[in-house]
Amino acid sequence: MIAVSAAHTDVEQVELANTAFYEAIEQGDFDELSALWLSPADLGVDETYHDPAETGVISCVHPGWPALNGRGEVLRSYALIMANTDYIQFFLTDVHVSVTGDTAVVTCTENILSGGPPPEEGEDPGPLLGQLVVATNVFRRTPSGWKMWSHHASPVLTESDEDEEPEEPDIPA
Amino acid sequence: MIAVSAAHTDVEQVELANTAFYEAIEQGDFDELSALWLSPADLGVDETYHDPAETGVISCVHPGWPALNGRGEVLRSYALIMANTDYIQFFLTDVHVSVTGDTAVVTCTENILSGGPPPEEGEDPGPLLGQLVVATNVFRRTPSGWKMWSHHASPVLTESDEDEEPEEPDIPA
Repeated sequence: MIAVSAAHTDVEQVELANTAFYEAIEQGDFDELSALWLSPADLGVDETYHDPAETGVISCVHPGWPALNGRGEVLRSYALIMANTDYIQFFLTDVHVSVTGDTAVVTCTENILSGGPPPEEGEDPGPLLGQLVVATNVFRRTPSGWKMWSHHASPVLTESDEDEEPEEPDIPA
Repeated sequence: MIAVSAAHTDVEQVELANTAFYEAIEQGDFDELSALWLSPADLGVDETYHDPAETGVISCVHPGWPALNGRGEVLRSYALIMANTDYIQFFLTDVHVSVTGDTAVVTCTENILSGGPPPEEGEDPGPLLGQLVVATNVFRRTPSGWKMWSHHASPVLTESDEDEEPEEPDIPA
């Protein structure tokens, strides 16, 4: 049985890591974001060794995108997103944390307000867009804190998006 | 350093658990599906104890849905989906497994072919629909095998769905 106070601390630390992830994107801080994503080296895995279990290899799904695997693909996608985003703010709601051993699964709703850069230099920036996204974030405990192992974000379809009840799935799995 | 053969076996076991999950849905086998989802009891957690870390509490996101948390919500959603699905088949591609300790993260593409029941008894069933979905599945090692801790599935938008390049995200996080 895990001591209640230790369990509370784990949940708080995971919530802080989750918040830090979104703040790094808001601030366009690529170095900070890179440091928050798990690296095999964080787990003591030699990155030159071909590891059949792919220990600590990260994955990321942006809304509407296929999966990206490994730090190269994932970090390149954030560099692209940051280059195409002038303003972004996340209001997180429905944050749910489950910690088991050295892994944590977080689900949360990302209420996003964002805008792109001006189409041409000197022009006005594009309009702000509001978007409703749900995320599942998996964190791994490391000697340097909880790091993001997997991020999967997808659009939440509301009743106004289609003529069916929200309980009726668009796709059944 | 993890022995290479043990790592291979872990990856194979996780791939089998991932396949079994989709087969249970294809066969409409609710009891089998329920057994494949992690239960706190699988981890030796007393379910009557209020656990602040929510050890082993499952979560699930169906395409376009908000997050569901806990066995009650998650299993009810599958009962609803099974009741509204006459035929469903998953062709899994791009399966990627990363095992770290007692947790595994799987990403895969679900190429889905599905059809609903007839609108009225005696009528023809609805047409078969093809759908492209990406999933992140998190498994936890337990004494009774690898169990699903988190499933997040979302539609993959292809170029024909919108007028933009697939590299340009719909929503930037």
